[in-house]
Amino acid sequence: MLQPITDIAELSARLGIRHFVLSPGSRCAPLTLAVARHPQLQTRVVPDERAAAFIALGMAQTLGETVGLICTSGTAAYNYAPAVAEAFYQQIPLLVLTADRPPEWIDQQDGQTLRQQQLYGPHVKGSYQLPDTYEHPDLVWHLYRLVNEAISLTQTGPKGPVHINIPLREPFYPSPDAVWQYSQDLKVVERWQAEAQLSDPQWEQLVLEWQQYGRKLIVAGQCEPSTPLLEALEHSSLQQQLPVVADIITNLHGLKGRISQQDYFLMQTGAPGKRTGLQEALQPELLITFGRSVISKNLKLYLRKHPPRAHWHLQAQGPVADTFQSLTRIVPVAPLHFFQELNKRLPQTIEQDSTQKTYYTHWQEQQSLAEGVATAFFEQSPAGESWGEFAALRRCLQSLPEGTQLHLANSMSVRYANFAGLSQDQKGVQVWANRGTSGIDGSSSTAVGCAVVSKGLTVLITGDMAFLYDRNSLWHTFLPANLRILVLNNGGGGIFRMIEGPRRQPELEEFFVTHQPFSARASALDAGMQYAACHSREEFERELPRFLAPNGGAKVLEVFSNSEASTELFGRFKKAILSQGSA
Amino acid sequence: MLQPITDIAELSARLGIRHFVLSPGSRCAPLTLAVARHPQLQTRVVPDERAAAFIALGMAQTLGETVGLICTSGTAAYNYAPAVAEAFYQQIPLLVLTADRPPEWIDQQDGQTLRQQQLYGPHVKGSYQLPDTYEHPDLVWHLYRLVNEAISLTQTGPKGPVHINIPLREPFYPSPDAVWQYSQDLKVVERWQAEAQLSDPQWEQLVLEWQQYGRKLIVAGQCEPSTPLLEALEHSSLQQQLPVVADIITNLHGLKGRISQQDYFLMQTGAPGKRTGLQEALQPELLITFGRSVISKNLKLYLRKHPPRAHWHLQAQGPVADTFQSLTRIVPVAPLHFFQELNKRLPQTIEQDSTQKTYYTHWQEQQSLAEGVATAFFEQSPAGESWGEFAALRRCLQSLPEGTQLHLANSMSVRYANFAGLSQDQKGVQVWANRGTSGIDGSSSTAVGCAVVSKGLTVLITGDMAFLYDRNSLWHTFLPANLRILVLNNGGGGIFRMIEGPRRQPELEEFFVTHQPFSARASALDAGMQYAACHSREEFERELPRFLAPNGGAKVLEVFSNSEASTELFGRFKKAILSQGSA
Repeated sequence: MLQPITDIAELSARLGIRHFVLSPGSRCAPLTLAVARHPQLQTRVVPDERAAAFIALGMAQTLGETVGLICTSGTAAYNYAPAVAEAFYQQIPLLVLTADRPPEWIDQQDGQTLRQQQLYGPHVKGSYQLPDTYEHPDLVWHLYRLVNEAISLTQTGPKGPVHINIPLREPFYPSPDAVWQYSQDLKVVERWQAEAQLSDPQWEQLVLEWQQYGRKLIVAGQCEPSTPLLEALEHSSLQQQLPVVADIITNLHGLKGRISQQDYFLMQTGAPGKRTGLQEALQPELLITFGRSVISKNLKLYLRKHPPRAHWHLQAQGPVADTFQSLTRIVPVAPLHFFQELNKRLPQTIEQDSTQKTYYTHWQEQQSLAEGVATAFFEQSPAGESWGEFAALRRCLQSLPEGTQLHLANSMSVRYANFAGLSQDQKGVQVWANRGTSGIDGSSSTAVGCAVVSKGLTVLITGDMAFLYDRNSLWHTFLPANLRILVLNNGGGGIFRMIEGPRRQPELEEFFVTHQPFSARASALDAGMQYAACHSREEFERELPRFLAPNGGAKVLEVFSNSEASTELFGRFKKAILSQGSA
Repeated sequence: MLQPITDIAELSARLGIRHFVLSPGSRCAPLTLAVARHPQLQTRVVPDERAAAFIALGMAQTLGETVGLICTSGTAAYNYAPAVAEAFYQQIPLLVLTADRPPEWIDQQDGQTLRQQQLYGPHVKGSYQLPDTYEHPDLVWHLYRLVNEAISLTQTGPKGPVHINIPLREPFYPSPDAVWQYSQDLKVVERWQAEAQLSDPQWEQLVLEWQQYGRKLIVAGQCEPSTPLLEALEHSSLQQQLPVVADIITNLHGLKGRISQQDYFLMQTGAPGKRTGLQEALQPELLITFGRSVISKNLKLYLRKHPPRAHWHLQAQGPVADTFQSLTRIVPVAPLHFFQELNKRLPQTIEQDSTQKTYYTHWQEQQSLAEGVATAFFEQSPAGESWGEFAALRRCLQSLPEGTQLHLANSMSVRYANFAGLSQDQKGVQVWANRGTSGIDGSSSTAVGCAVVSKGLTVLITGDMAFLYDRNSLWHTFLPANLRILVLNNGGGGIFRMIEGPRRQPELEEFFVTHQPFSARASALDAGMQYAACHSREEFERELPRFLAPNGGAKVLEVFSNSEASTELFGRFKKAILSQGSA
């Protein structure tokens, strides 16, 4: 009876899906059985659909392949929405299967029923409604065709989430004597991928224009780790003396000469009357960007205020954002292809005294100055004085073992980590953060999803707000032993203390910081994780190696710090950078 | 600059809103400050937006008035979606204010940004986009007009959630020297309410038809507690010998002669060859319904299989569901009005030997039989033998103090409670359950919201799955002392053991019951609640009075029971009912 539904599992497997995350329910039983019984599909059950969807997202993000989700009808499907939106903006392939009642029972006061068609609005690449009867052969062809199309769509163009809403009538369960099988002569539509390339005349024009600009700057947005891209880009950067500005989420920390301290030294450019020379010295003529979002707010503000004459964005497919308000050309090829080709087409040396070389040096100088101040501040000041959540995060980053999957939660952790940075020799560390929509709602679940499909450690750095928000990430029975969660607990949303506006309002503590008294302890122990707490640098230094040791199962290390003291420390740190810069 | 935004608070207060639930964020700061500083508005902060929205829903449900919600941009707004859908189907008035970036910054890779217009799709009564500049006076008029319209809309027709998306540009915070004030000459549009009435000729036709039907049955769906409705209906029922079938969520347990055990005795009508006489004896000629959803699945199945000749549904406004597939007439007046008018227009006696009287007696007999079996089963069987989650719930229901707000979580708790029932002398107990969409996602938060605005005890009966799913309901700093949560912990979704289909699948334990090892203890202690656990009838009898005592602050009582034993007990209980009925 439900053979076409059973075959969705087979079709998924044939089109390359290996993992499904399921949440319990009755309406979705035919889908649950179909994937649970399929020999090539791995299934995991997560009761809270919000966490389930972010766990699937974490798996898909790490693997670069489509992961399936299955839930029952009603608000279950709506609990997927935060992760679906994050997947849409972060371009992560998810196949979202929601069970539904058949159309005639919508709005008839039956339980767990709402209007599920198009439930995720514009935050999916496509939304399909499967037929609710299979009597006419065309309906069956339609169903198989739609499933083919949906799975392809998760992977083509910019990847992303695709929704299939599946009306199901009882009986949901096969009778005990029914033969269980997947159809073998299924309709499978392969879809090839092609790479976009520019023509020779286009390249000639591009090289010609390239040579006309004296100050060329590269800014990367969020990217998946890619050694070939890093190598091609490094070659361009060193050969052509191109400064490459790269946040921690670009996964370009292994690149020689990378600029990463821009959020420090571009702060100065905003200070009126201060170091005005710097503003002009760093302004690009040609800006080349690729990747997705950029964390450094000071970089955004700086470039919007000091726009380039031309701004090329490299992106093979999909809509292009004008993040810096200066976009002049979309170059629709993959960044890797662009830099490999550029390396072939440009002369292999540039003049010693060229404007570009001077420009490169300006950026390098600022980077070195900021790095020097940071090191001095943290390593030369007396122990204890510079202790706090930022120092703990910095030490944790420095200590990450080779091969770590590093997850950075929103919102303060990823900002802190961007300030602290990874060093060039930490190439083996891969960095992930949900910067598609930058919510605090699913950082832990995403890390859990990553750990499940990774071999090395998955280390999540998070705050108390983000951790507690998503504590149902730990509520299931497959907690991976390679998961490590560092919780920076300052008893609330400390980020609001650091922003000028709320800091000056009498409502700061109650309505913005929203002091919260919970620790991560109970949630960690509930989940059977090892737990340790630190209140000082000494305790932290003692616990950190244990925390990062490969054995001993999943662990939580919670660092308690005083939010006001941390704010004060961070303020002093910024001041040190500023005063050094202007010296 | 942001005076119109500040005035949203003033307008809300003038149009009768008293409570706002806020979640922390930066983009929403102008809204936060506007409501936090308003002398007539009460504000509470809840970090997890999913819980925040259900808490607001619980407040609005209890008060019958519009409650406001404020969150920042991005996925924060999506986390409201489950509660928004529940509010839509349960017709609860919510004013959902979501802060947004201005339109030009959507899809530009900025943090916490997605496509928020129409975010809740068809699950709000209206979705408004406020202007993003206030320079032209018409824009300001537009803004005030839209806010007036939105607040009105939450309260008119069937009540429900309304969304206002509010684009905001920096600066979000008033400068320290700015004067803070609410405009006094605001545009306020009052909206009166009118009551729908039938004409005299319509009533004459109705009474004429009424008298032609020999077996009239009343079935109530979910209703808010209403003493006038109960009195008018009771008068009709007793005078006209009308059986009234009323689930626990109808709030009609105070009605004399109410039929509440239908889910037991209608089970028999499904058993082939068994008690066939009963099926015909109970079949109505005229069915009159009102209210929203019905829990009793056996009642639905019975009436769909044995439809009346005519089915009138009483509902003043909004779309009408055809729950029993037998609807023939929509009577667009309020049920209270209908029964009051009916009582005036019908003769005050009916013949002693009328078909209607016999019909009434048939229903009463079934009710008495089932009640007798239930009492005997639980009170005469040896102690311990009939112990389990169902027995605990039954004892708790019987012990509720006068004035209790009883909340029943989905999915097993509300079903159990419907079987166990409340007695006629428990009129002072008001019953609530999220049966709009019947999700397990917000039952605890809803109870928290109720407790916050109630004087007496708010007692939530929930299962381990629903409790843990929504444990962030307890993550804030205003936990009300009158909150009591009874957690029936059988280590997973025990409901699946009771359904024929999944029970026979080898995947039962892993994919349906989804055994989970957490208890409520850590979550309760985290929140500073009193906690006690029971594993036997003796422990439960000892703890129950302490749990229900008015003093001592918020409490959790967790009953551990063996899911398989509970299933077995419930099975024996059903069998007792069936054998009694057929005797």
